[in-house]
Amino acid sequence: MHVVIPLYPRFTALDAVGPYTVLAFAPGWTVTFAAAETGPVADDRGSLSLAATARLADLPHPDVVVVPGGPGTLDAISDPDLVGWIARAHEHTRWTASVCSGSFLLGAAGLLRGRRATTHWGWLDHLAGFGAEPVGERVVTDGKVVTSAGVSAGIDMALALLAEAADRETAQAVQLAIEYDPRPPFAAGSPKTAPAGLTGRALSLIG
Amino acid sequence: MHVVIPLYPRFTALDAVGPYTVLAFAPGWTVTFAAAETGPVADDRGSLSLAATARLADLPHPDVVVVPGGPGTLDAISDPDLVGWIARAHEHTRWTASVCSGSFLLGAAGLLRGRRATTHWGWLDHLAGFGAEPVGERVVTDGKVVTSAGVSAGIDMALALLAEAADRETAQAVQLAIEYDPRPPFAAGSPKTAPAGLTGRALSLIG
Repeated sequence: MHVVIPLYPRFTALDAVGPYTVLAFAPGWTVTFAAAETGPVADDRGSLSLAATARLADLPHPDVVVVPGGPGTLDAISDPDLVGWIARAHEHTRWTASVCSGSFLLGAAGLLRGRRATTHWGWLDHLAGFGAEPVGERVVTDGKVVTSAGVSAGIDMALALLAEAADRETAQAVQLAIEYDPRPPFAAGSPKTAPAGLTGRALSLIG
Repeated sequence: MHVVIPLYPRFTALDAVGPYTVLAFAPGWTVTFAAAETGPVADDRGSLSLAATARLADLPHPDVVVVPGGPGTLDAISDPDLVGWIARAHEHTRWTASVCSGSFLLGAAGLLRGRRATTHWGWLDHLAGFGAEPVGERVVTDGKVVTSAGVSAGIDMALALLAEAADRETAQAVQLAIEYDPRPPFAAGSPKTAPAGLTGRALSLIG
């Protein structure tokens, strides 16, 4: 199974590297980071660059696409090359997936019309602008389109996708290999459970 | 607060990018990826390179060091430049931390003698060879040395470190910003809860 993760300036690194680590550990799966041109692509903090090893134009038919989010989606949704690549690749994929605001790129490619979808809690309502039905869940699967919530949710999404695409035991073996037995020190990861008044402060950290 | 994450060939990407994402989202914190030389450093799958933007030799006094693990630690523990840098940096750090088998590099630098420490469940017993007391917990803090369990545990570790180094509210705001409200699809992330017989298969995926 060949997975392509498209990179664009100011993506959020964990959106890409969470699913990457899950899927690249699976036997027989390969993951390629691709962009408009090969070479380093800088993330949203400007302090980390991931190397794109292929041009998107050279990878028209991946089995799986995982689109990361990040503040760079604000510009990227107007990039006809990237959005067009997603739309055309989707015609052939087994799954087309996104993390966080990566769902806006799926939306810009026309893939969310009439579909249930999710994104980061901070801008869930914006999905309606792409014709989607916003759903406040961690991972939402509608046909072959799989969207997930903010940043860290890509790990959960990739494990669920792997269980479906390979089998339950493979996903469990990867989960054990990466010791994904999360123990967050606080119950602050969702606006439903976080201390009151924290949402504004959290949103100020993004972008 | 200045954090340095040292990279070496065949590190595991999520070990580095999990803590990076947590700490780089914190106001006033900067994170630098550094290596023997600047430029791309390939991970354990060979399909992802992270860019080192500084030479370790040029960053002798970081406030915080976070050492990722990965199969490359087997060679890296014999690299006198890397191990020596960790030992000397530790003299000045506020915290010296590791993820997964990154703890072996702390051990090789002599930082674990007489300390409680942890690592990936697959090789917890090996810590005793560095004079440490192996502890099967997600995050172990002993003085200013913070070690964590396998791969994904670096996210929990970084949030705990941030709560201690900054304050509880800052860590909670970052947790909410990255929507770290984990919902693993299976209870397979620890050998204590995974289906019987899965440990061998999980270990075969690593390395």
